[in-house]
Amino acid sequence: MKTPVCVLGLGLIGGSVLRAAAAAGRVTFGYNRSADGMNAALADGFDATADLESALTRAAQLSALIVLAVPVPALPALLEQIRRLAPDCPLTDVTSVKAAVLDDVTAAGLAEKFVGGHPMAGTAHSGWPAGHAGLFEGAPWVISVDDHVDPTVFATVLDLILDCGSVAVPARSEEHDAAAAAISHLPHLLAEALAVTAADVPLAFALAAGSFRDGTRVAGTAPDLVRAMCEGNAPQLLPTLDRAMALLAEARESLATESSVADLVNTGHAARTRYESFPRNEIVTVVLGEDDWRRALAAAGRAGGVIRSALPTPDSR
Amino acid sequence: MKTPVCVLGLGLIGGSVLRAAAAAGRVTFGYNRSADGMNAALADGFDATADLESALTRAAQLSALIVLAVPVPALPALLEQIRRLAPDCPLTDVTSVKAAVLDDVTAAGLAEKFVGGHPMAGTAHSGWPAGHAGLFEGAPWVISVDDHVDPTVFATVLDLILDCGSVAVPARSEEHDAAAAAISHLPHLLAEALAVTAADVPLAFALAAGSFRDGTRVAGTAPDLVRAMCEGNAPQLLPTLDRAMALLAEARESLATESSVADLVNTGHAARTRYESFPRNEIVTVVLGEDDWRRALAAAGRAGGVIRSALPTPDSR
Repeated sequence: MKTPVCVLGLGLIGGSVLRAAAAAGRVTFGYNRSADGMNAALADGFDATADLESALTRAAQLSALIVLAVPVPALPALLEQIRRLAPDCPLTDVTSVKAAVLDDVTAAGLAEKFVGGHPMAGTAHSGWPAGHAGLFEGAPWVISVDDHVDPTVFATVLDLILDCGSVAVPARSEEHDAAAAAISHLPHLLAEALAVTAADVPLAFALAAGSFRDGTRVAGTAPDLVRAMCEGNAPQLLPTLDRAMALLAEARESLATESSVADLVNTGHAARTRYESFPRNEIVTVVLGEDDWRRALAAAGRAGGVIRSALPTPDSR
Repeated sequence: MKTPVCVLGLGLIGGSVLRAAAAAGRVTFGYNRSADGMNAALADGFDATADLESALTRAAQLSALIVLAVPVPALPALLEQIRRLAPDCPLTDVTSVKAAVLDDVTAAGLAEKFVGGHPMAGTAHSGWPAGHAGLFEGAPWVISVDDHVDPTVFATVLDLILDCGSVAVPARSEEHDAAAAAISHLPHLLAEALAVTAADVPLAFALAAGSFRDGTRVAGTAPDLVRAMCEGNAPQLLPTLDRAMALLAEARESLATESSVADLVNTGHAARTRYESFPRNEIVTVVLGEDDWRRALAAAGRAGGVIRSALPTPDSR
C-alpha cells in the first residue's frame, strides 16, 4: 500500500497536494487552522480537520508522510507539535525557500526524517478553491539532497512527487535558493523597477508594447507574495541583485564613455541562447543510498537532469 | 488622387511600406542601394531601382511623399541628394530614434517639408523578403508634432499611416525618444543583465520557468539590432537606466537593512496596474493648422490618444 499522506495547510499548494494524492489512490487527510479552508475541503468530499492534535495523532498511527504546506512564519509552532505527537513520520514541505525551512526543521530536531521539496507551480491565486489535482502535472518539483537526507525518506517523498504528475529535480537546499533568487526573485524586482521607471515618463504607456508588456508581466503579481518570496530569500537575493546591478553599471559606463553596450548585449544574447537549448535528461542510474548518491543526484540536477520514475535502491537491484 | 509614395530603402520596414501603399491603390516606387533588395522587389512585381538619381527625379516630378527607410548612418548622404533633386517633396522617415533624424534633416535644410514617423512594428527578421503589406495593421505609428511641423505635410504623412492600417500616435521627437528608452531600450538591457546573472548560477537554467522566460525573451533579439537601438538613443537611455538602477539600489539597501522590498514592490505593482488600464481614446477634434494644434496633439498623444481617421483642416470645416 502507498504511504498515507497528511497535509498541514490546505491553501492552493497544500490543497492541490491533498487532491492529487487522493486521486492517486492514497489515504489522505488534511489539517487547516482556519475553519474556512477546512470546511471548503470537507464540502469537496475530502477528509479535513481544524484540530492539529487529532491530525498528527492519526499521522503517527498510520506512519503517514506529513507535508508542511503553511507559510514559513507558521512553521516553528507546527514543528513543535509534530515533534511531540508524530516524531517518527517522514516529513516534507512545499514552500519556496529551502534553507530557512531546513533550519527550522533542524532546530525542532526533526531533520533525520525530513526531505524538503518545492513544486514550481503557479501561485497567482490562493486558497483551497484555487487548487486542483492537476496543478503539478508536468511541473518541475525540487527535492532536496542535502547531506543529512535519508534514502528511504527520499524515496517516500519522490513517490508523492511522481504521484502528483511532476518531474523531480534533485538539488541541495542552498543551491535551490540561489537559483530561485536568479530565476524568480530577481526577475520580479527588475520587472517592478521597469514598471516604476516607465510610469514616470510621459508617453511611455501610450507607446508600450511587447518588450514592456513581457518585461513587467510579473509586476502584476500580488505585492504580498512578491515580498514574501524576496524577503524570505534575502541572503541569496542580495548577491544576485548586486551582480545584476554591477552588469548594468558596467553597461552604463560603457554607453556613456564609448557609446557601446556591446559587452552586455553579446553576453546576454549568448546566455539566453544557451538557456533555450538547455538539456533535460532523465536520471535513471543513481541508486538511492549507495556511496555518494546525494552528490551524484545534485550534480545530475544541476546539469538539467530530472527524475520521472522511481529510482533503484540497493534492495531493489 | 492619393499622393504617390517613393520609399528609399527596401528592407523589412521600407519594403512593407511600399507594399502597403501599393495595396491602398497608390502609385509607388522604391530605391534600394543593393541590387539584391531591388531585384527581390522587382521579382515580386514592384517598381524598384538601384539608381537613386532616377528615383528622386521621378519623385520630384510627381510631388511624391518620400519615405526614408535606411539605417540612420546612411541618412546624411541620402538627404544631400534629396536636397539637390527633390527639395520640395514632402518627407517622412520610419526609423526608431526621432531626435537624431530630425537633426540630420535640419542640417540638410529639409526640415520644412519633414514630419518624422516611427511604426512600432516587429523587427525580429530583416530584408525585403521578411516584409508584407499587413505588417503595420493595428500597430501604433508615431507621427511627430515638433514645433516646425507643417500641417499640410502632417496630413500627407498621416494619410499614409492610415493607409498602412496603423493608428497614429502624435508625439514630440524628444518625448518619443524618452518613451522608447523606457519601454523598449531599458527592457532590453534588463533582460540581458538577467540572462547573464542567471547563467552564472548552477541549477538556475534547470529550474527556470515563466518569470525567467518572460524576463529574458527580448535577450533573444539579434545583438546588432539591440546595440543599434540602445546606442542610437544614448542621450535618453542613460537617465532612464540611472533611474532604474537607483530604484534597484534603494530596494537593495532596504532589503539589507530592513529585510523589506515593500517600496519597490508596491509602486511597481501600482504602475503595472495603471498600465493595464491605460486609456486609448480616439483623437477627433484637433483641427490641423489651427492655433496650438501641435501642442494639443502632443498632449492628446501623451494621454493615450490615437488618430484612426483623417483629422479636419481649416479648409475642410
